[in-house]
Amino acid sequence: MLTLILADAELELVPEQICNHPQVRASAERRGKSPSKILLDATLHHIAQRRLSQGRRRGRPDIAHAFLLLCLDSIVNQYHKLRTLIHTRNNELIEVAPETRIPRNYNRFVGLMEQLFEENAVPVTADKPLLVLHRNKSLKNCLSVVNADKIIIFSSTGKPISLSEYFRSLHYTEVSELVCIIGGFPEGEFISPVTKLADEIISIHGSELKVWTVVSEILVNYRNALLIKDPKN
Amino acid sequence: MLTLILADAELELVPEQICNHPQVRASAERRGKSPSKILLDATLHHIAQRRLSQGRRRGRPDIAHAFLLLCLDSIVNQYHKLRTLIHTRNNELIEVAPETRIPRNYNRFVGLMEQLFEENAVPVTADKPLLVLHRNKSLKNCLSVVNADKIIIFSSTGKPISLSEYFRSLHYTEVSELVCIIGGFPEGEFISPVTKLADEIISIHGSELKVWTVVSEILVNYRNALLIKDPKN
Repeated sequence: MLTLILADAELELVPEQICNHPQVRASAERRGKSPSKILLDATLHHIAQRRLSQGRRRGRPDIAHAFLLLCLDSIVNQYHKLRTLIHTRNNELIEVAPETRIPRNYNRFVGLMEQLFEENAVPVTADKPLLVLHRNKSLKNCLSVVNADKIIIFSSTGKPISLSEYFRSLHYTEVSELVCIIGGFPEGEFISPVTKLADEIISIHGSELKVWTVVSEILVNYRNALLIKDPKN
Repeated sequence: MLTLILADAELELVPEQICNHPQVRASAERRGKSPSKILLDATLHHIAQRRLSQGRRRGRPDIAHAFLLLCLDSIVNQYHKLRTLIHTRNNELIEVAPETRIPRNYNRFVGLMEQLFEENAVPVTADKPLLVLHRNKSLKNCLSVVNADKIIIFSSTGKPISLSEYFRSLHYTEVSELVCIIGGFPEGEFISPVTKLADEIISIHGSELKVWTVVSEILVNYRNALLIKDPKN
């Protein structure tokens, strides 16, 4: 089983501090919503965001969107061998059921996330909702939902490896619960204390990569190396 | 060198036939544009689209968007070993310079494509534009821009193979110009006569996959199998 965690993801509602900024108010008005109930989006709120700490990297729902589409539509997920989690900069944990069909349209995805932040579950009335949001979950807390045999962090400052060879060197029986953590932000470092949490920090390329590039590398190489070794397949 | 072609892509301006449909007019008005100058988008125009032939599958700029982000941000592209092309259902060819930075935000991407359909190049004043749109280019014409050693079509009805093994079986010196064609539509078959054009039609999984899943499989496995064998690297 592979668990993919998008960590410190830049996914949040507009912080109270900038709810009254004209740029935020205008974008909320266009959608007929209250400023405190819309997602922070760097495309729309780049000027307002400058007032926030680490404002340059915040407001990136598009990263979480691409992450979810790639994970949920992956071959690994079709084999029921993938657990998909998002941990946000504000220490929320989003659990995503493997059968979830994420809207492919970005604007609909934004609406869905806003609903999730408001109601903590989607669909809120379901016994087993597809998406559940838990608050006050540090990355360490998120890891406690998985009984991990090995926790790997992907970072351009990690140990350089070839991912296909690295995964092939793992033995499925010893690493039947593998956790891969990638940063859900466009630049900079993890906010969470990842070095304390990881068994290994690895780099799959000489320079920084986009989240969708790293997720592709993990899903395809995991399938090639480990899925076929799983005795249950 | 790998050439990735998104073929018969469902990327087009609103056809004249439905420019007067209330759903189209309303969405054009919201953006302050003429109906004939906006992209057809199934999320916005699903009722209007029913009047079009093959209306159920049309209006999918999101597929082209995901395709371009994955290609241009891939490791293969960073090594200057990727040519990225889009062929549309209306036989347009979009050539994409490898250094192009596609907007990560979907709404900005839509604006960019509308500009491209209007001006045929972006930036239109550049000596070497990043994006160029050529008209009256069948898929066969598109293939003539590449001196291909091998042309592979990806289709769920093709011959079942393991892509990692398949790519590893190719010899870089014999297949230094490899063309991979995937369908840029959500369902159904290619419109272009692909069987006549391909050396091989292959299937990498038992059932239909999303475009982003197939593109990931191609880019990652190509890097693993062939990029490292290229004597120029």
